[in-house]
Amino acid sequence: MDFREQIAKLQGLDFAGLHQDDFLATWDKTEAELKAVLAVADALRALRENNKSCRIFDSGLGVSLFRDNSTRTRFSFASACNFLGLAVQDLDEGKSQVAHGETVRETANMISFMADVIGIRDDMYIGKGHTYMQDYARFVDEGFQAGVLEQRPNLISLQSDIDHPTQAMADLLHVIHESGGLENLRGKKLAMTWAYSPSYGKPLSVPQGMIGLMTRFGMDVVLAHPEGYEVMGDVQDIAAKNAEASGGSFTVTNSMQDAFVDADVVCPKSWAPYAAMETRTELYARGDTQGIDDLEQRLLAQNAEHMDWETTEELMATTRDGKALYLHPLPADISGLSCEHGEVANSVFDRYRTQLYRQASNKPYAIAAMIFLMKQPHPIAKLEELWKRDTPRWSH
Amino acid sequence: MDFREQIAKLQGLDFAGLHQDDFLATWDKTEAELKAVLAVADALRALRENNKSCRIFDSGLGVSLFRDNSTRTRFSFASACNFLGLAVQDLDEGKSQVAHGETVRETANMISFMADVIGIRDDMYIGKGHTYMQDYARFVDEGFQAGVLEQRPNLISLQSDIDHPTQAMADLLHVIHESGGLENLRGKKLAMTWAYSPSYGKPLSVPQGMIGLMTRFGMDVVLAHPEGYEVMGDVQDIAAKNAEASGGSFTVTNSMQDAFVDADVVCPKSWAPYAAMETRTELYARGDTQGIDDLEQRLLAQNAEHMDWETTEELMATTRDGKALYLHPLPADISGLSCEHGEVANSVFDRYRTQLYRQASNKPYAIAAMIFLMKQPHPIAKLEELWKRDTPRWSH
Amino acid sequence: MDFREQIAKLQGLDFAGLHQDDFLATWDKTEAELKAVLAVADALRALRENNKSCRIFDSGLGVSLFRDNSTRTRFSFASACNFLGLAVQDLDEGKSQVAHGETVRETANMISFMADVIGIRDDMYIGKGHTYMQDYARFVDEGFQAGVLEQRPNLISLQSDIDHPTQAMADLLHVIHESGGLENLRGKKLAMTWAYSPSYGKPLSVPQGMIGLMTRFGMDVVLAHPEGYEVMGDVQDIAAKNAEASGGSFTVTNSMQDAFVDADVVCPKSWAPYAAMETRTELYARGDTQGIDDLEQRLLAQNAEHMDWETTEELMATTRDGKALYLHPLPADISGLSCEHGEVANSVFDRYRTQLYRQASNKPYAIAAMIFLMKQPHPIAKLEELWKRDTPRWSH
Repeated sequence: MDFREQIAKLQGLDFAGLHQDDFLATWDKTEAELKAVLAVADALRALRENNKSCRIFDSGLGVSLFRDNSTRTRFSFASACNFLGLAVQDLDEGKSQVAHGETVRETANMISFMADVIGIRDDMYIGKGHTYMQDYARFVDEGFQAGVLEQRPNLISLQSDIDHPTQAMADLLHVIHESGGLENLRGKKLAMTWAYSPSYGKPLSVPQGMIGLMTRFGMDVVLAHPEGYEVMGDVQDIAAKNAEASGGSFTVTNSMQDAFVDADVVCPKSWAPYAAMETRTELYARGDTQGIDDLEQRLLAQNAEHMDWETTEELMATTRDGKALYLHPLPADISGLSCEHGEVANSVFDRYRTQLYRQASNKPYAIAAMIFLMKQPHPIAKLEELWKRDTPRWSH
Repeated sequence: MDFREQIAKLQGLDFAGLHQDDFLATWDKTEAELKAVLAVADALRALRENNKSCRIFDSGLGVSLFRDNSTRTRFSFASACNFLGLAVQDLDEGKSQVAHGETVRETANMISFMADVIGIRDDMYIGKGHTYMQDYARFVDEGFQAGVLEQRPNLISLQSDIDHPTQAMADLLHVIHESGGLENLRGKKLAMTWAYSPSYGKPLSVPQGMIGLMTRFGMDVVLAHPEGYEVMGDVQDIAAKNAEASGGSFTVTNSMQDAFVDADVVCPKSWAPYAAMETRTELYARGDTQGIDDLEQRLLAQNAEHMDWETTEELMATTRDGKALYLHPLPADISGLSCEHGEVANSVFDRYRTQLYRQASNKPYAIAAMIFLMKQPHPIAKLEELWKRDTPRWSH
Repeated sequence: MDFREQIAKLQGLDFAGLHQDDFLATWDKTEAELKAVLAVADALRALRENNKSCRIFDSGLGVSLFRDNSTRTRFSFASACNFLGLAVQDLDEGKSQVAHGETVRETANMISFMADVIGIRDDMYIGKGHTYMQDYARFVDEGFQAGVLEQRPNLISLQSDIDHPTQAMADLLHVIHESGGLENLRGKKLAMTWAYSPSYGKPLSVPQGMIGLMTRFGMDVVLAHPEGYEVMGDVQDIAAKNAEASGGSFTVTNSMQDAFVDADVVCPKSWAPYAAMETRTELYARGDTQGIDDLEQRLLAQNAEHMDWETTEELMATTRDGKALYLHPLPADISGLSCEHGEVANSVFDRYRTQLYRQASNKPYAIAAMIFLMKQPHPIAKLEELWKRDTPRWSH
């Protein structure tokens, strides 16, 4: 990464709205703000590659509040925090009294007395995760206003039921790097398609995050899935509006083949039907174990009707010059490797493996950039200062 | 907080005894030592509010040894450690081999090779927790003398069966802030009363910590509980002696009403009868599952006889000008919110919510102050140095 | 520790091979490299004892990947990382998606984007742990070459099925300290013997690590165990070759008595038969629960035939002047203390307790030395710089 190039991208952009805000969904942000996150992510990478410390905190806490398991995102958040000088304190529900009836308001205040940043993953139940984060944000606002909190911690969604902004931004960085620049995305075709998986109930936030973000920069975004695998209507509406505003397009199809034809970028990935996830949320709320088991069987059977939604070599051959960029947030269900039949043929996955890892490597920088921009009143000046300060990240 | 005001409070106090000592119970400390912790807590808060780094450790470890679940205290300890420059390493029994028969002596040495501070929570069994901490302290002494440990880590009780000093000190800070100064506590009436809860077995260390500490500064402390909910006699004796020495008073009553009348401060909170907790400890030692279940049923039934011990608006109206300061260590059992019938009426709790959160916000500073004073041979000079050094906690 | 003395030991040694390498087994390392780790461990201890900060990382991550429980090694790794400036991020399988079919290659890359050091414990299954670490090393190599990882993290085995290098190096440091220098080991007799334990399945990596390392410096190493408790043949071959090369000897006996006679150092410690551990691995792979239970019963019965393999006062009396140095990696099964009949008589253990704790205290320094040497291109110069820089580890 070239540091000066990223600084140049930041010049003239109005991204002041990020300061002291939260980052819960990409569609809450302006185009300039998203561009700023992208450029700062790459600038921070450039600083690191040049062994320049990016500590802006002498001490401080990043709290990670995971209401679901995670390896990648947990490590990405921890890496980003550490890179900026924050220690991470995990709040796992099992370890704490949160499960014992504490209100969100109380938790939000109790764990934030010295928290600079809070990363929350809550993607399990439709209609809950994003709302939880919004409540949380309101409560730390109140706590800060009332003098309970010494600082107002900034929130980052590490995946909700609606959006997965750190994943989507990391993916976008990858597409930009592979395309030679954000300006090259205009007119490119991106296929976000469902794919078969032998497991069920994968979150909708990945496809929703993709169509909500990739429609911002003039791309032709196609969402493809079998009938019955609809995503949230609200997010489809957002995608459509984004596309119109950016001069791109957003279409929905029930054909994986159509979506792949001449695509420049493909992201085939399983997810659960929105309606089924709503039902599941209600079943969990009622504690209806039998109902949950029945739903699981029904969904697995439904998935099994669409085993042909696999990312095969044949399909890949129909993309632009047979060389579309293949995306996946990982881990993928790889046919013949991690399962008998899955989302993607082994030979396809293997060819893109290194690129996929590079795609994932953007996430810590995307998170660090969000933190940096939410905290710094003068981000460009601070980046320049870090470059000039030249404190080695590690001395040798 | 005003930094100079806190420094002024420290001048002339003899608190040298805190240096290189542990903090296991407030009644082990002199009045001057307690005042020093209070003033340093507020001085550290002033430093933080002025964005001045309080790192006194370039590297170092704070070990948290939790033998019971905790959110608040865990986060408070982690926050305090981080604020002073220590990384936190948790020792949860589930994660480690401690449960497999290791002696306390061995654990105390094995986890302390590079530990600067050890925070221990062990409040489950009457007669065990405090003793465990004392043993632990003796063993790290031995280890340091024998050249096993490079430094002698200092111990902080994060709640034992007897006292909960970090909670009590945080509560006292709150009372001081709300009263306009420690000197204003003299002659004020504080009611530490039992309250009904639909759960059972809540620790005695909170009421004991309160009567053991609040009697130090000339207050009129009333302990109220139904018959059968007696706390430890030893701690009652300590409270009585404290009251006599400080020119206040300590009385025990079986009437919540009497306790509330004209009270300036009330702390209504459920706890288990001491004798029942002793029985439970024996049942656990014998592995008598049936006995434990029977005891639980008996205790819940006993609690249910006292559902009228609720902090109602009517009771609150009988306090000084109807405006007593309401304290609770949280989480509270709130009638109609977190349970049907609980410790406190929803409208009462809600009115004091922000104050309760501010009460809780003192805990990280109370813990940091204890660490600071146990470590620093010249605390006043070091505080002044931190103020003048003016290293930003975070740079922006 | 004397700092200059350790620096003097490093002069003239060729240990450049450690730089940017991993540390998975001591027998992969040259004599000079091992000597360098020993001297740097003591030099780092000297720096710490003189309150000189050894932070070489302004930010950075040490990842600990534990596939088995651990207190001591976990804390030692965390301590070493913290001492050098790294934050620790744990990857426990329970917390993560690793258990859900992720390939090692993917995990190795996904958690290493900002990882400087990775410590791995994987000692459960014969034939798996060391191989896992080698795979892991290859995959981070690939990731670094492909631009996925910004740095190539260095790996440390925190115990595999084959070797336990951080334990063995800590033990060797202890023997050196107690003997007055590495040069005094030549011709000394060390007995690594099996001992009875009422539990089963203890790892082979401790005895293997001992015979693989202690044969490097001219000692006469005797491995003693009952018939049927053979360790891996490959490691015995390594020990034999080491002994030949170093001018010492390596013999195997089935008599604890013979091993103890005139021994200067004894390490009596239980382990499982290699063949049984191979069987267990297969049973686990097949998910044969009944077979695992049967094997456990068989192994406990087999252990029970050798209850006379106990470290008694009588046996200790037969060692050199009755005063052999007694080693144990801890926790020990102590007869009459932690169990009815165990590895060692209570009176023997108790006499050596302080020494055993000092033995254990070397482990954080051994790990820190490995990290230091794997990271620093010019370790002697860097150590001198740390000494002169004189940044206080903690200020007072």
